[in-house]
Amino acid sequence: MPFQIAAELRYSVMCRSTMLLSLHALSTPNQSLYDECFTVTEGATCEFFPIQTGMNRYVRIDTGDLTEMLITYNVTAETNPNARKIHQIDRVPVGSLHADSLRYLFPSRYCQSDRLGKLAAKLFGHLSHPLAQATAISDWIFENIDYIPGSTDAATSAHDTVTERQGVCRDFAHLGIAFCRALSIPARYFTGYACNMQPPDFHACFEVCVGNQWFIFDPTRLSSPNGLIRIATGRDAADSSLATIFGSMAMESMMVSCTSDSFTPMSREELSGKAVLLEP
Amino acid sequence: MPFQIAAELRYSVMCRSTMLLSLHALSTPNQSLYDECFTVTEGATCEFFPIQTGMNRYVRIDTGDLTEMLITYNVTAETNPNARKIHQIDRVPVGSLHADSLRYLFPSRYCQSDRLGKLAAKLFGHLSHPLAQATAISDWIFENIDYIPGSTDAATSAHDTVTERQGVCRDFAHLGIAFCRALSIPARYFTGYACNMQPPDFHACFEVCVGNQWFIFDPTRLSSPNGLIRIATGRDAADSSLATIFGSMAMESMMVSCTSDSFTPMSREELSGKAVLLEP
Amino acid sequence: MPFQIAAELRYSVMCRSTMLLSLHALSTPNQSLYDECFTVTEGATCEFFPIQTGMNRYVRIDTGDLTEMLITYNVTAETNPNARKIHQIDRVPVGSLHADSLRYLFPSRYCQSDRLGKLAAKLFGHLSHPLAQATAISDWIFENIDYIPGSTDAATSAHDTVTERQGVCRDFAHLGIAFCRALSIPARYFTGYACNMQPPDFHACFEVCVGNQWFIFDPTRLSSPNGLIRIATGRDAADSSLATIFGSMAMESMMVSCTSDSFTPMSREELSGKAVLLEP
Amino acid sequence: MPFQIAAELRYSVMCRSTMLLSLHALSTPNQSLYDECFTVTEGATCEFFPIQTGMNRYVRIDTGDLTEMLITYNVTAETNPNARKIHQIDRVPVGSLHADSLRYLFPSRYCQSDRLGKLAAKLFGHLSHPLAQATAISDWIFENIDYIPGSTDAATSAHDTVTERQGVCRDFAHLGIAFCRALSIPARYFTGYACNMQPPDFHACFEVCVGNQWFIFDPTRLSSPNGLIRIATGRDAADSSLATIFGSMAMESMMVSCTSDSFTPMSREELSGKAVLLEP
Repeated sequence: MPFQIAAELRYSVMCRSTMLLSLHALSTPNQSLYDECFTVTEGATCEFFPIQTGMNRYVRIDTGDLTEMLITYNVTAETNPNARKIHQIDRVPVGSLHADSLRYLFPSRYCQSDRLGKLAAKLFGHLSHPLAQATAISDWIFENIDYIPGSTDAATSAHDTVTERQGVCRDFAHLGIAFCRALSIPARYFTGYACNMQPPDFHACFEVCVGNQWFIFDPTRLSSPNGLIRIATGRDAADSSLATIFGSMAMESMMVSCTSDSFTPMSREELSGKAVLLEP
Repeated sequence: MPFQIAAELRYSVMCRSTMLLSLHALSTPNQSLYDECFTVTEGATCEFFPIQTGMNRYVRIDTGDLTEMLITYNVTAETNPNARKIHQIDRVPVGSLHADSLRYLFPSRYCQSDRLGKLAAKLFGHLSHPLAQATAISDWIFENIDYIPGSTDAATSAHDTVTERQGVCRDFAHLGIAFCRALSIPARYFTGYACNMQPPDFHACFEVCVGNQWFIFDPTRLSSPNGLIRIATGRDAADSSLATIFGSMAMESMMVSCTSDSFTPMSREELSGKAVLLEP
Repeated sequence: MPFQIAAELRYSVMCRSTMLLSLHALSTPNQSLYDECFTVTEGATCEFFPIQTGMNRYVRIDTGDLTEMLITYNVTAETNPNARKIHQIDRVPVGSLHADSLRYLFPSRYCQSDRLGKLAAKLFGHLSHPLAQATAISDWIFENIDYIPGSTDAATSAHDTVTERQGVCRDFAHLGIAFCRALSIPARYFTGYACNMQPPDFHACFEVCVGNQWFIFDPTRLSSPNGLIRIATGRDAADSSLATIFGSMAMESMMVSCTSDSFTPMSREELSGKAVLLEP
Repeated sequence: MPFQIAAELRYSVMCRSTMLLSLHALSTPNQSLYDECFTVTEGATCEFFPIQTGMNRYVRIDTGDLTEMLITYNVTAETNPNARKIHQIDRVPVGSLHADSLRYLFPSRYCQSDRLGKLAAKLFGHLSHPLAQATAISDWIFENIDYIPGSTDAATSAHDTVTERQGVCRDFAHLGIAFCRALSIPARYFTGYACNMQPPDFHACFEVCVGNQWFIFDPTRLSSPNGLIRIATGRDAADSSLATIFGSMAMESMMVSCTSDSFTPMSREELSGKAVLLEP
């Protein structure tokens, strides 16, 4: 099923600046892109590369002498999510995890899993399967954290959210990651587009590695896993943020849309007892 | 000049556990190894690989049924440090940094550079060359933070140290990294062996990237850059710690030594106005 | 029923110092003292007064030229605790609280009630009677926080404990206070002696004000309310600590005992549905 | 010299609520009030009393069935500030401080003096007179913290401000208090009106106790000590805030003014080497 994605970012530029931008959808075995078009106001120069912190397609933009900069992005994407029954997925102990996933066990800027060990064990330690734990974590966050736009800022971390009980998708994902790592489940940050999400915005979720495969969870329940298009993964928002600016720029407006003619979100009944793989 | 390195770690094992161990010296263009010998008590199984968080040689050890485990490591290493005059090193703006170093600009678990921006600018913003800034940062830490063994723990981060003004090598390095990143200088954590350090222990320093080369700083002044042998680099101690344990084990004793017949530490006069590269 | 209380504190004094000491039992309508004896090594000078932060009997000790100082305290105390049925106690809205209790609604150093509002409402907001809430808070702390001597330090606050889920009596009391204030229930810190507590030590609990009377709760369940002898109350440990030292002194040893020939702790059955007043 | 003070606060009331309001000027030996007038929309009921946390004149307002509430306050105040030469003021050791001032040595919600000991000693420990230390603290804050309206919120404390280096008058005062207490100088929070301050607003400063007298410092330098009219003192903003609301109310508008026909602020030259007492 094809998704039509569009994003438009408008910045004012106070002095010559460099921006690291992460809004391109990834091209992966399970995520195909068509008709991709990325434009920046003439006068800026762009360089394209990944940063070694997960999967991503960064653009480094030098604003040159621009005082205003408009960025547009349009693409059609197709994904192939795969819902699997949890009890059919073998768990893999830390001793057998792929070396690639081990780094996602370590605490990071916004996911202080080292301080959540006892709490995670108390809340989720009675469950034996890591995907049952991740499901319970996602449900617990949905039930216990209030989704309140504007209630948090760029310094808010999982250690704050677990107590203050409010946040946005980024905070929900950080807390999910921190709980999972505290239980020795590799977990990473997912950013992407979400079909028909209201209000339209970039979205964040978390993925956990079980049986050396990565399953996605959205503790906000604002998206459905079959409506997600991946931009990047990383340890947390510190290495997966939309834009990192060196210099002085201010965002003036942002428009995001992700739609599909034929999209039907998976129901909670369909998802019951299952976890969804975005990549094979 | 050859350094003789020896380490011996003794653990009691309460239940079958998995350990990620990082004590092997790296083999790099400027660091050569001879007569390397690594042993673990028979009954444990070992797997050797790097983890994608920097440079490292992790060993994953499955304790099997052991109740006690002894790890020994011996190696002879040679390094080739290179002191360069700071004013001869071109600075490279963020827009021209190698993509590989960009990830070392982001905040991490123990280095909350996003919260130190104003302070870093006030203290070091008047200096224009990033190596002059890094030198001033290292000096400031030496002068303002008390080196007090036992004063901090595994949860202590740069945000704590900058206020509480005490710590050990790990805390000194974290603060150096956080200040550098706050000034848009890529900075990473270095762990290694340090010749003739008293008392002998594993050591931590920080490296900063200028002109796409990495220069090392030791804000504790307990080591000399020509007496350092690298074990690993990473974003901070979260991904470069000596040992991460999944299960239940307790360290019973640790012995480290790093000596050389012919070692003369570089004097502060020799280092004045210079920065030292460990790698070419 | 009489309790025999004894305490002995031994300090080494590195330089002439001033100590604020709070170990005298209070004399109140419901707590009578007999045969009180307080001694300090000859050469020190003492001054006795309360500090306006609650109820207390501070001693300010000037060590003079002593290099060692021994403090002893002995007293016999009788108390008259009163267990009341919760449903018979009228709640009093904030608009009718005595002005004296209002200050115990504000956040304090170790009880950041301003940051626990949502969490407190989620956990305890479904209960309507403030003593039912306080009982549920005390039970929740007992069930969710591990009592681990040495796991926390003088900087640990309720905001840490609610996440890290471990602590000692001081931390348990701070969390109880913070939750109560977050629910607009005045709450204060209680320090005292506890009959037959194992191991013997000074103890901390919390009191809440309902119907303009103060009811005591011990979330550690290490004491029984009919075995508590009050030393002081305050907002939190910041103004009720055993000893505050200006200068340089180190505690070398501490001995506390509180016993009674005829003491029978109240059972949990006896306490069910009730709350205990220490003062009338 | 008489100051004309006016304040007008307009609230919408979502449900019957109780407010603790602190905007009345104090009447003290050195601060005289004339023509005081306080009004609240008819239908609300008011009760007047101090809260035992310092000096204050709280009003407890029950909104009754109001949906909008207007509060007005008008008064003429005269003060008699007294600038004294620092070197003529005897310092008093902790052992001789009035018992009343000892509580202002303890850490509080927003002034974690217990965590700033080393930093305070490093920055200000070389000065021997406590008023020289308080002056240096006030100057250091002015020079090192940026005054940025909106940069902080109700959870911001001295421990944040010392690192993040920005804030408003409340944050400046909290940091001054925390540094002083860390140096064993009693320090308290002052709120009041400030003549001709731009923009007009309620103001916060800090007072320190030396020789059992309280001297005032404004690290923002937005006011002059001879233009301050005291509303309240307390340990910090937790017990001296303008309004504490139990229920649900929102401030719709606030107007404050404090003027005088004949006011001339004291110059920095006049203040040099001096400290100002507001009370005798």
